[in-house]
Amino acid sequence: MLMSDAEYRESLRALKPSVYVDGRAVACVADEPALAPGVNAVGLTYAFALREDTAPALRAEGPGGAYNRMLHVPGSDADLLQKLEAVRLVCRYTGCAQRYLAGDAIAAILQVAPALDADGPGREYGTRARAYRDHVTGRDLAVGIAMTDAKGDRSLRPHAQPRPDTHVHVVERRRDGIVVSGTKAIVTGAPYMHELLVMPGRAMTAADADFAVCFAVPADAAGLTMVARPAGRPGEAAASFSGRFGQSTAVCLFDRVFVPWERVFLAGEWAHSAAITYAYATHHRHTCIAARAGFGDLLIGAGALMTEANGLDLADAPGLREAMTDLIRIVEGFYACGVAASVYGTAEAAGVVMPDAVFANIGKLLLATQIYEMHRLAHEVSGGLIVALPGPGEDHNPLTAGRLSEVLAGRSDIPYEKRIAVARFIEDLTASYQGGWYSVISLHGGGSPHAMKNEIFRRYPVADRVELVLDLLDRGMLADATRRIRIGRQPGRCCAQGCRTAPPAGGRDDVS
Amino acid sequence: MLMSDAEYRESLRALKPSVYVDGRAVACVADEPALAPGVNAVGLTYAFALREDTAPALRAEGPGGAYNRMLHVPGSDADLLQKLEAVRLVCRYTGCAQRYLAGDAIAAILQVAPALDADGPGREYGTRARAYRDHVTGRDLAVGIAMTDAKGDRSLRPHAQPRPDTHVHVVERRRDGIVVSGTKAIVTGAPYMHELLVMPGRAMTAADADFAVCFAVPADAAGLTMVARPAGRPGEAAASFSGRFGQSTAVCLFDRVFVPWERVFLAGEWAHSAAITYAYATHHRHTCIAARAGFGDLLIGAGALMTEANGLDLADAPGLREAMTDLIRIVEGFYACGVAASVYGTAEAAGVVMPDAVFANIGKLLLATQIYEMHRLAHEVSGGLIVALPGPGEDHNPLTAGRLSEVLAGRSDIPYEKRIAVARFIEDLTASYQGGWYSVISLHGGGSPHAMKNEIFRRYPVADRVELVLDLLDRGMLADATRRIRIGRQPGRCCAQGCRTAPPAGGRDDVS
Amino acid sequence: MLMSDAEYRESLRALKPSVYVDGRAVACVADEPALAPGVNAVGLTYAFALREDTAPALRAEGPGGAYNRMLHVPGSDADLLQKLEAVRLVCRYTGCAQRYLAGDAIAAILQVAPALDADGPGREYGTRARAYRDHVTGRDLAVGIAMTDAKGDRSLRPHAQPRPDTHVHVVERRRDGIVVSGTKAIVTGAPYMHELLVMPGRAMTAADADFAVCFAVPADAAGLTMVARPAGRPGEAAASFSGRFGQSTAVCLFDRVFVPWERVFLAGEWAHSAAITYAYATHHRHTCIAARAGFGDLLIGAGALMTEANGLDLADAPGLREAMTDLIRIVEGFYACGVAASVYGTAEAAGVVMPDAVFANIGKLLLATQIYEMHRLAHEVSGGLIVALPGPGEDHNPLTAGRLSEVLAGRSDIPYEKRIAVARFIEDLTASYQGGWYSVISLHGGGSPHAMKNEIFRRYPVADRVELVLDLLDRGMLADATRRIRIGRQPGRCCAQGCRTAPPAGGRDDVS
Amino acid sequence: MLMSDAEYRESLRALKPSVYVDGRAVACVADEPALAPGVNAVGLTYAFALREDTAPALRAEGPGGAYNRMLHVPGSDADLLQKLEAVRLVCRYTGCAQRYLAGDAIAAILQVAPALDADGPGREYGTRARAYRDHVTGRDLAVGIAMTDAKGDRSLRPHAQPRPDTHVHVVERRRDGIVVSGTKAIVTGAPYMHELLVMPGRAMTAADADFAVCFAVPADAAGLTMVARPAGRPGEAAASFSGRFGQSTAVCLFDRVFVPWERVFLAGEWAHSAAITYAYATHHRHTCIAARAGFGDLLIGAGALMTEANGLDLADAPGLREAMTDLIRIVEGFYACGVAASVYGTAEAAGVVMPDAVFANIGKLLLATQIYEMHRLAHEVSGGLIVALPGPGEDHNPLTAGRLSEVLAGRSDIPYEKRIAVARFIEDLTASYQGGWYSVISLHGGGSPHAMKNEIFRRYPVADRVELVLDLLDRGMLADATRRIRIGRQPGRCCAQGCRTAPPAGGRDDVS
Repeated sequence: MLMSDAEYRESLRALKPSVYVDGRAVACVADEPALAPGVNAVGLTYAFALREDTAPALRAEGPGGAYNRMLHVPGSDADLLQKLEAVRLVCRYTGCAQRYLAGDAIAAILQVAPALDADGPGREYGTRARAYRDHVTGRDLAVGIAMTDAKGDRSLRPHAQPRPDTHVHVVERRRDGIVVSGTKAIVTGAPYMHELLVMPGRAMTAADADFAVCFAVPADAAGLTMVARPAGRPGEAAASFSGRFGQSTAVCLFDRVFVPWERVFLAGEWAHSAAITYAYATHHRHTCIAARAGFGDLLIGAGALMTEANGLDLADAPGLREAMTDLIRIVEGFYACGVAASVYGTAEAAGVVMPDAVFANIGKLLLATQIYEMHRLAHEVSGGLIVALPGPGEDHNPLTAGRLSEVLAGRSDIPYEKRIAVARFIEDLTASYQGGWYSVISLHGGGSPHAMKNEIFRRYPVADRVELVLDLLDRGMLADATRRIRIGRQPGRCCAQGCRTAPPAGGRDDVS
Repeated sequence: MLMSDAEYRESLRALKPSVYVDGRAVACVADEPALAPGVNAVGLTYAFALREDTAPALRAEGPGGAYNRMLHVPGSDADLLQKLEAVRLVCRYTGCAQRYLAGDAIAAILQVAPALDADGPGREYGTRARAYRDHVTGRDLAVGIAMTDAKGDRSLRPHAQPRPDTHVHVVERRRDGIVVSGTKAIVTGAPYMHELLVMPGRAMTAADADFAVCFAVPADAAGLTMVARPAGRPGEAAASFSGRFGQSTAVCLFDRVFVPWERVFLAGEWAHSAAITYAYATHHRHTCIAARAGFGDLLIGAGALMTEANGLDLADAPGLREAMTDLIRIVEGFYACGVAASVYGTAEAAGVVMPDAVFANIGKLLLATQIYEMHRLAHEVSGGLIVALPGPGEDHNPLTAGRLSEVLAGRSDIPYEKRIAVARFIEDLTASYQGGWYSVISLHGGGSPHAMKNEIFRRYPVADRVELVLDLLDRGMLADATRRIRIGRQPGRCCAQGCRTAPPAGGRDDVS
Repeated sequence: MLMSDAEYRESLRALKPSVYVDGRAVACVADEPALAPGVNAVGLTYAFALREDTAPALRAEGPGGAYNRMLHVPGSDADLLQKLEAVRLVCRYTGCAQRYLAGDAIAAILQVAPALDADGPGREYGTRARAYRDHVTGRDLAVGIAMTDAKGDRSLRPHAQPRPDTHVHVVERRRDGIVVSGTKAIVTGAPYMHELLVMPGRAMTAADADFAVCFAVPADAAGLTMVARPAGRPGEAAASFSGRFGQSTAVCLFDRVFVPWERVFLAGEWAHSAAITYAYATHHRHTCIAARAGFGDLLIGAGALMTEANGLDLADAPGLREAMTDLIRIVEGFYACGVAASVYGTAEAAGVVMPDAVFANIGKLLLATQIYEMHRLAHEVSGGLIVALPGPGEDHNPLTAGRLSEVLAGRSDIPYEKRIAVARFIEDLTASYQGGWYSVISLHGGGSPHAMKNEIFRRYPVADRVELVLDLLDRGMLADATRRIRIGRQPGRCCAQGCRTAPPAGGRDDVS
Repeated sequence: MLMSDAEYRESLRALKPSVYVDGRAVACVADEPALAPGVNAVGLTYAFALREDTAPALRAEGPGGAYNRMLHVPGSDADLLQKLEAVRLVCRYTGCAQRYLAGDAIAAILQVAPALDADGPGREYGTRARAYRDHVTGRDLAVGIAMTDAKGDRSLRPHAQPRPDTHVHVVERRRDGIVVSGTKAIVTGAPYMHELLVMPGRAMTAADADFAVCFAVPADAAGLTMVARPAGRPGEAAASFSGRFGQSTAVCLFDRVFVPWERVFLAGEWAHSAAITYAYATHHRHTCIAARAGFGDLLIGAGALMTEANGLDLADAPGLREAMTDLIRIVEGFYACGVAASVYGTAEAAGVVMPDAVFANIGKLLLATQIYEMHRLAHEVSGGLIVALPGPGEDHNPLTAGRLSEVLAGRSDIPYEKRIAVARFIEDLTASYQGGWYSVISLHGGGSPHAMKNEIFRRYPVADRVELVLDLLDRGMLADATRRIRIGRQPGRCCAQGCRTAPPAGGRDDVS
């Protein structure tokens, strides 16, 4: 099923979530100005699936008809590539599509369910996961993913925390379901989602069994409170982009929230917690690459426009052309890692194809650390006026507007109004609260740089490379036709199938 | 003379500058909330000169008694080092001291005046410059420096612009002075300064003679209008630092402003324009290094505090310790260039000692491009919560505050309130409008990276290095005791004394 | 057809090229010790195509049967990926496969031939190119590619050089063919190739028509002299890798060499010179990515081995693990660009699929500039002993060997002999003439970083990004359902088909 | 006293050290071709102290007359600056001065001796240290510093090694002195030194007391064997620089070597081991900065020359000028850290002034990691021909030399011979065994990057920065005139005097 933007907003009105923004209770999410940029951004994922020109990118086809590609679980390398292109497209228009996290998380619970079911009698995790996927795609839902626990004292594991509610955990097991309490800390777009899918935030030990829990609830489940930040910069006159499109993040407080069994995807099977966590992280980091490439497209376009408005021609300004080329190199350089992760995707259980973890983590690491350099390059190309031009309040001041418009224009054929519009656009994206937010969320969203590096090293076939050198150090290598040379495309580039579902050996193992 | 903070504010009330902020006319600069963080920051330079503990750093002694070190023209290497320490100290408390630009600019006009006087009959630029210095130090004034012209079409020189008012220029020469019009675009702290000192923004040609102009006017000179941005983030609850201390920048519109001859320091002698411009740029870039080192001190302290509040110990977290060490390496690495520029300072005319241009430009280039990496490292150390923690509006919401304070605390002995205060402090410095502003102004203030690179290459004794290699390629080098080897401390590391006052040969020659 | 390694060596003996190494005339290339590492490396491309385990990677199938994949012209995205894997495999064992340049160059002349034929009457460039491809694959030849002219004064175009022989050019046109003279400067593996395929080194103007020439000749053509460097470090005891496998480069002097028409692929049609040059450059830069990834595999394996031999465990040494992860990030990061260039390959004339130019140039740029960082990381991981351990001469000194073997061992279960073998392997790859050679050739081979950057900027759809931002700045964007949004996979990511064959507009346009 | 170069060589002939190079016993160090470049380099430190033009830089004055500045213990900031300039000068001509390590090590034992003497009855370490300094300066000796132990299994402390001879240690205490055995692994210039001064390689624990030993012996002490590498690239025709000047490193095997008490500076007082080690490391890292800046001068000069020989003008080649400017930025950027470390030097015991540890370690870290980038930039500027031009063997081949000289020249007014000489010079410095050696030794000499980072973090006044932020978070800061603000020049920037002599808390504590 495919809803329209209007239907999505209407469907939000049918929910009564407990949401606070800036200390105020929100009466209706769909009509709350502080959340409007977020609702607009998610709304556009609905609209694009219905527009003729964007539908090919945004729609997936299933047995029950078309549904939104943001919800699609990849079943092939081509699906992974298609996801990248769709997410990049939407993020070009909204900064962040937000809704794609659902597809990533559903893929994770689907691919881990068979191992879960095989590990104990009478389990039906596979059936539940498939049913949930159909529920979401069939109703065209927006689903928020709640993964990062509040964590409390980061030097202690969940069960050892002085305040157990720093992590979400099972507080009661009932015949009809479980009761959960605790806190998820950075939930993208939570207030304007239909449901929340709660993922385990790390590998667990036996002592942490109550914290090994995965489930879905409606946004207005009893006992669930969301304390949210405004989405983007609503109502700020200078926020030419983030006044229209943005993203809220919420702290989600679970206070004895009931979850029926059919929406429970893990509840105590601690040994499988890492598998779900890492599968989701891998899918998600891959998708992030496309999201930030879309952001990069905005900087590239805006940088070129600003140069022109300043009266400069990139053909004659080698220094600026170098900076533009660096910007392109960074954006397409990390996007390439997303493409490679797609091509080397690995076939997992339940027909899920997961991006290659090494390439996906490298791509996410590169975007996380290089977004700061992207800001620098955008500023270098744009010149210092972007933070010095008069604010929007001045635009209609009769005592100054005329003169400013005359003396602050750049090239004579480009009006001041256009120059200042581009300057504010760049300021909004890179030198505002929204710009700062993009950089922090790029750095830490989907896991810190440290977490990426751990995964890259852990997943890389270092042993194969060592064996290669050992072969070469043994001078008889070429003569010995019986020694087998390893070749060809490595499925998943992973030492062994096993490591993908096993808990990681050592090291800090929370991924977010 | 030394004014107190209160006297400074009172003195502002005696001026009636024409200032607009956000489209509103400002009635009294000293009492305008939108400018308060800027007034506070400048006020602290007055206060620190009177506090017993800070006075040794902030005071300079002259024949007429003590005056503020921000206004002192360096006459020795020790003065240059002392300036660095004083500016770093003030910027640690306010982000940017702003007032030191006056000392940099007065040094420039003092050191160039002798050559100007020697170049034509009956000139008295030296006398005027000294009188102006005594005027400023004697009254303990705050003087804004207006250098960057609006520039218009950047591919055209000033005289060729379709709109001449994009640059400040002489429109009439009268018996008692000159009349100027035009626009200076990024004037630091302009609204709450007593006077503006207007510098030429680039090297000029004969055709640009009317644009080769340097002069001082009171902030409320007739015909001068300032269109300013708010200083910092006044009134924003989350702005724990920039709500108190900040910096306004103004576009300054000159419309037939009269300047008496005793305040004119250049008027048409186009061949000396470059000398003033580059001298000021060199002094100023050197000072910028200390300013941003003070900002770095804030990030280092806040990063360490945040780590602690997250429950982590840097001794046990090698990844975070590495990031902290990188932050220190960057900050002290560029500060070292400021120290070296001081030690290798060059004796100029009129007793001015100018920092070595190569080291000063390298330091400024490093801070300009690495401030983005400083933001990244601060974010890496701090974790993602800095943009996800609830806003100040939530602090007093009885329905959420208690629970948030419980579940969002980190280490059990550090209260939530402290953790969130540090998080907001870092967000304010690095992920807000103020954070973005710091990065852009670091990149472009005092000249773009391109301008630094040009100076570094132009000033470096490449020819000496070439000669060294030619010596070595001639195998007889060691045998030939008559060949002279160049040794010792190079004064100014400059190919020849001449190049320091000559206009630059080729290349884009505007420095800002 | 597929030759064995032995047949390849025998076939070399049938040729009598004029080759000098170190000032000596080489009697027989196949038996010359100074060239042995190069012959070994090329020989391995023959051997691997016949080994059961490596044949799947190294063989391509054509109508005339199997032939070596190094010679295969890609006709699909899968071919491009397969080429990457095959080249990486061979380079893992030899450092550089050398022979793949032939496939890259034949692809270029094939894909440009249709436009050449269409541009004038009676041309048969397409027929000749196909015949040459069949000649090479049918005989399993090793073909050297000669592209970089000696260049002379780099500020002058070819026709303006005081010494025309700095560039290869047509000196006579005869009924049966052309006569050429001039110099190609860095020809990979020239002495031990069967033929040379000479490519134009840059875009040409009408005045340069005689320099717009492309042709093939046997290695022992009359008038052709090769002045070569030794391949690798033959005969050096410490050269554990480059004593066995290496690469010679030769300066090739053409002195009135005759070329029959059927081996002429361009002769004066200057407007098509750029098309051949850039097509070859794009294919070749793509292939280089795989070559250097194979080199990276060696460093990764050797670094891990060295760590172990030093008695350290990467699991307990976060600093070394970080360095290893950086090494992996760099190698797989640029390899990903090769993969993405394959996936976004563009269908060219004559059924050739060319890698995407933006991704291919980014990948080559990253490897070119980051190979130095790869050396650094390998050294960081390995420790300083790699340049301080005693040389091989000491291994059999009865007075020292025993004691050294005792006191210089690391972990007690790893003998000194193994530790020193790994150390010398790393020294050979990164801190020897061979190591330096790898870095220079990575930086400049296939074009300088400057040339990559020009291509990246020129080929990137900047205009599309500008239009995107213009859409967003017009606030009606979402409301206007008639505005068309660009989506989906961009064929070639190139603004227009035309730019691929047109000469580049402005800028330095030699690519090597 | 000051010896001439000839006297130095003659004095070497008077010693009979047991030296092996490449498995051969060396009869006379002064006449051994494999060591000649090393002897030349040290010889130049003697020659420069006697040349009129270089004497001001190379001489220090003491009560006993002039002596070589390489041996001078700094007693003021000016001394530290002077040392930098002198070392940079010598290294410009020889690549590495080698002899300055003596001054660094003698400073360390002098400054620690008072604490040693105070720590036990009847000690006379201070007297011995002064006597040794006078011995060395009075005879103008060349003294090699042996610090890095062979280390064995790096995961074990010295006393726990299965083979104790991996570290130098006391095996017997006699009435007249001590007897030592063990191995020092990377001793700069050992074979052509008059004496060796052996330093402890790390902090020690009580169990390691026998390994806490510091002493001096003549190069030909009984029981001492040196296994050395050739210095530079002696005898290689292409080694235009390193064929004349180079550096040998030796593994020094101590087999029951006797040391009289007057040359023992530590013997079992394990708690003082760290103080000596870190003091030496700090002095030495500071000096390394100047050494590598001299190397940088060579690259800058050679890069500019090569550009010219290629026919390019840096004024018209923005890409190359950018690379040259980057090279300058790196070299002067780390040199600035050396200057700053001098200015903020700390007064230690015995009148020694030690460079500031934070700045010195940052400078060493920057040169260690950026020398690879220096190589890249030199290659970028120079073009690919540096590894493709014919070797020296070809220069006199009558069949090729004439033609090569014609077609491989660049600019018509610069002969081929000059172009190729510069190319070989750059190849020698950056793409040869010598080039690789420079990079490894820069990375690991004086301690690994990891060791620098530990020192930077450990020595930095992080607590001061934290307190600053705590002040600011307390909003009353400005109002509270009683709160004391820390200002001014921090002596040593070190939290407390104590930390400089205490063993480091935690972490890997060997510095080399």
